[in-house]
Amino acid sequence: MGIDTHQELVVYMRDDCHLCRSEGFVASNRLNVSCGGRSIIAVLNVVYGGHIPHGHVGLSISALERLRVRPGTLLTIKHAPPIRSLASVRKKVFGHTLNGREIEAIINDVTAHRYSDIEIAAFLSVCAGGRLSLTEITDLTRAMVTSGERLDWGDGRRIYDKHCIGGLPGNRTTPLVVAICSAGGLVMPKTSSRAITSPAGTADTMDALTHVDLGVADIRRVVEEAGACLAWGGSMNLSPADDLLIRIERALELDGEGQLIASVLSKKIAAGSTHVLIDIPVGPTAKVRSQPEAERLQSLLVEVGAACGLSVRCVITDGQGPVGRGIGPVEEARDVLAVLQRADGAPADLRDRALELASHLFDMADGQGLEAGRERARLILEDGRAWAQFQRIVAAQGGLKTLPRALYTHEELAPRDGTVGAIDNRRLAKLAKLAGAPASKAAGLRLCVGLGDQVTAGQPLFQLFSESAGERDYALEYYTSEQPIFSLVSER
Amino acid sequence: MGIDTHQELVVYMRDDCHLCRSEGFVASNRLNVSCGGRSIIAVLNVVYGGHIPHGHVGLSISALERLRVRPGTLLTIKHAPPIRSLASVRKKVFGHTLNGREIEAIINDVTAHRYSDIEIAAFLSVCAGGRLSLTEITDLTRAMVTSGERLDWGDGRRIYDKHCIGGLPGNRTTPLVVAICSAGGLVMPKTSSRAITSPAGTADTMDALTHVDLGVADIRRVVEEAGACLAWGGSMNLSPADDLLIRIERALELDGEGQLIASVLSKKIAAGSTHVLIDIPVGPTAKVRSQPEAERLQSLLVEVGAACGLSVRCVITDGQGPVGRGIGPVEEARDVLAVLQRADGAPADLRDRALELASHLFDMADGQGLEAGRERARLILEDGRAWAQFQRIVAAQGGLKTLPRALYTHEELAPRDGTVGAIDNRRLAKLAKLAGAPASKAAGLRLCVGLGDQVTAGQPLFQLFSESAGERDYALEYYTSEQPIFSLVSER
Repeated sequence: MGIDTHQELVVYMRDDCHLCRSEGFVASNRLNVSCGGRSIIAVLNVVYGGHIPHGHVGLSISALERLRVRPGTLLTIKHAPPIRSLASVRKKVFGHTLNGREIEAIINDVTAHRYSDIEIAAFLSVCAGGRLSLTEITDLTRAMVTSGERLDWGDGRRIYDKHCIGGLPGNRTTPLVVAICSAGGLVMPKTSSRAITSPAGTADTMDALTHVDLGVADIRRVVEEAGACLAWGGSMNLSPADDLLIRIERALELDGEGQLIASVLSKKIAAGSTHVLIDIPVGPTAKVRSQPEAERLQSLLVEVGAACGLSVRCVITDGQGPVGRGIGPVEEARDVLAVLQRADGAPADLRDRALELASHLFDMADGQGLEAGRERARLILEDGRAWAQFQRIVAAQGGLKTLPRALYTHEELAPRDGTVGAIDNRRLAKLAKLAGAPASKAAGLRLCVGLGDQVTAGQPLFQLFSESAGERDYALEYYTSEQPIFSLVSER
Repeated sequence: MGIDTHQELVVYMRDDCHLCRSEGFVASNRLNVSCGGRSIIAVLNVVYGGHIPHGHVGLSISALERLRVRPGTLLTIKHAPPIRSLASVRKKVFGHTLNGREIEAIINDVTAHRYSDIEIAAFLSVCAGGRLSLTEITDLTRAMVTSGERLDWGDGRRIYDKHCIGGLPGNRTTPLVVAICSAGGLVMPKTSSRAITSPAGTADTMDALTHVDLGVADIRRVVEEAGACLAWGGSMNLSPADDLLIRIERALELDGEGQLIASVLSKKIAAGSTHVLIDIPVGPTAKVRSQPEAERLQSLLVEVGAACGLSVRCVITDGQGPVGRGIGPVEEARDVLAVLQRADGAPADLRDRALELASHLFDMADGQGLEAGRERARLILEDGRAWAQFQRIVAAQGGLKTLPRALYTHEELAPRDGTVGAIDNRRLAKLAKLAGAPASKAAGLRLCVGLGDQVTAGQPLFQLFSESAGERDYALEYYTSEQPIFSLVSER
């Protein structure tokens, strides 16, 4: 049918299909569709009006891909068998605690695409709101790890990783931290995700700079050559259940704490990490909004990590505003290069955050304390070793790409004098996305002011980049029609 | 598109549609689709391969119906505005209690089709498991009443109704109770539903006997003429939110107690009832499985009813096995007629249940006690007044139809001697549904034995009726391949 249902598997059948009639299939039934040894469970949509030929059924893009069939293939269709693990979801609905076996069965069925979207929604809803115990979160994390591939870097080898809970546009510290720490000898086979709701993920930014779609063999070779990589994790089937759950979680705007922890830690464990540093920015428009919330998250991350054999350290950081000057894949890549190359005007806030995170990783590695770690990180960056190391990684991944320029640039000017009192992270991210990021790599923003800056009327606040006039206009309409993203405070 | 998505509103757009690109629409986005003053919120499915002409979009059947547009109409499409009441759903996810205003806003948005299926699933999941307080259930009931039409039968007039929580195949007491009680002077404008998961609802059985698709004006006329009606409630927009919630609740097999109570009571209040008798059958394969569960449900039904100004009485009845001999619309209609006409072989269990329920309604009406009520009901049935009254109702609804015979009949024989020790209600219902009920009116079963009967090998257990050989074979395959529906206990 060529229909993208956003991963929900759908089978389309004629209303007068004899199979629908004799088997009693009606719209929204769950059907088992099989071909050879492969089978999927799909939701039925009934099609009236003869759009599908007699004796044929249609499949959504996701169903076609998962079943790996071509048009004209003979399919067998019957009622889906009952999914036993749904009894455990109902058990959780009714307030009971699940054991490891029950959680594993749920995650296995989710991974095998046996759950419909509403079933996943029910599971996520009753697990959110602090309804998962520490043991349940640990079991969920383990089940998500075993749902997919797991990288093994050799017995006793320490593998370092970093993660940011997110919510700050432009906060692209990962390439810097990986370059600094791997220059200092830490092994960091870093796999990152593309943007889900933000204008760029680390994989999007790195994709602007080099090749990131590496298989497991390539990743091993790059890490062998350079001691680190900066790759996209999406093609490696690490914690695949996570991707399926996140899709519904985002749609529901549900950030269940247990789910978040299992999601972050399962990806790290599956990637073979042993030591992970997690950055938790806190601010009114960041993902985590208060210090107590950050502390609770920190303690759960550390405890669940420990239960899974993963050493976790969290750093709670200032999440009041964006970090660096660029927002969007290419603009963030410019900031990363500027810091590594110690260019004039390289964003100091981005550099300082990267150094702070690197110092924590060094301290986790050698236990020499944060002061020593800070000094070591600063030296590695300042004497050019980090930049050389970054070039080594990029060379092993296929070489440095030239950063493109966007077709359309708009400069937005301050309407009056004032001090930048606050910047809304969420709306700023939305603005960059409306301009076309991350689908258009060069689209996004370059901030000309930061928190606390004095501005005078007519001074540029930011530049907006886009690849089409339509996206530029749409973004600017959003900027002017919504509440101000930059709060200018007048002093008198 | 002619696609039946089971009421989820879907808009289909080309992948290369300029609107998708410039507005950043991606699959599963919620879009506002409007035309003139009417608008819907639909889920986007992106269609690849040019099945939709340029400049066009497709709509699911439900979206087309709700928007009331014809092919070729100009539509305006934009991102859906955020649904504010979803914040209350998230509040409930996080374990907080909702107030009346919040619940009303949720129900209003559900009724206006502003919730996606996964959002409804999230709401239902966090309301199930006893997570709704008595006040919340009452607020939910009230909100569901105000979501739709409300019938008014005049100030101070007592309007009687009955309801069965369900789960027993063949338990078609409603037409009998309405005939007996309205013959005794009680006003009973009875509206019923069609089957949702059973082989027949009261509306399906009555549909085999007369016309049930009456509008409000017709119902008023019939009640004026006969003091009662036996109509289908589906076309009257009573508690429409209930229908939208039930659809997802069934798919999730979630029977949230609060939701059940609000569902039952909101329909009765919206229909203008003042006094309702509720039959709660209890048995191992009935909907309610234990006496304590039935008592808890009873107390909540009575309390929520009282808070909404509705007088509710519950009767907890034996739900161990099927009632009557026929299962399926036509076969149940035969039982109803046999009881009313005092035919030889009319099922005594069905008659006795109807008399018992009628006696409770008489007692609710005149307070003369159950003994007096029983005597009154028995007399009305025995002297033919109930049959005359039933004919009066049916005549006012358009006259009695002739009951059809099914094309295929199969007689299943007892494999050995024994006593019928148990009958599985759920599997029996499934068997009748596989035979084609309720879509094929004449399809279903006629039981030849009941609980406790002695049977000898070769004696018929039941007759199975179907309109196609395929459905007959499919039903019989289910019967033989599953655990026995009739447990034959050998005595020695």
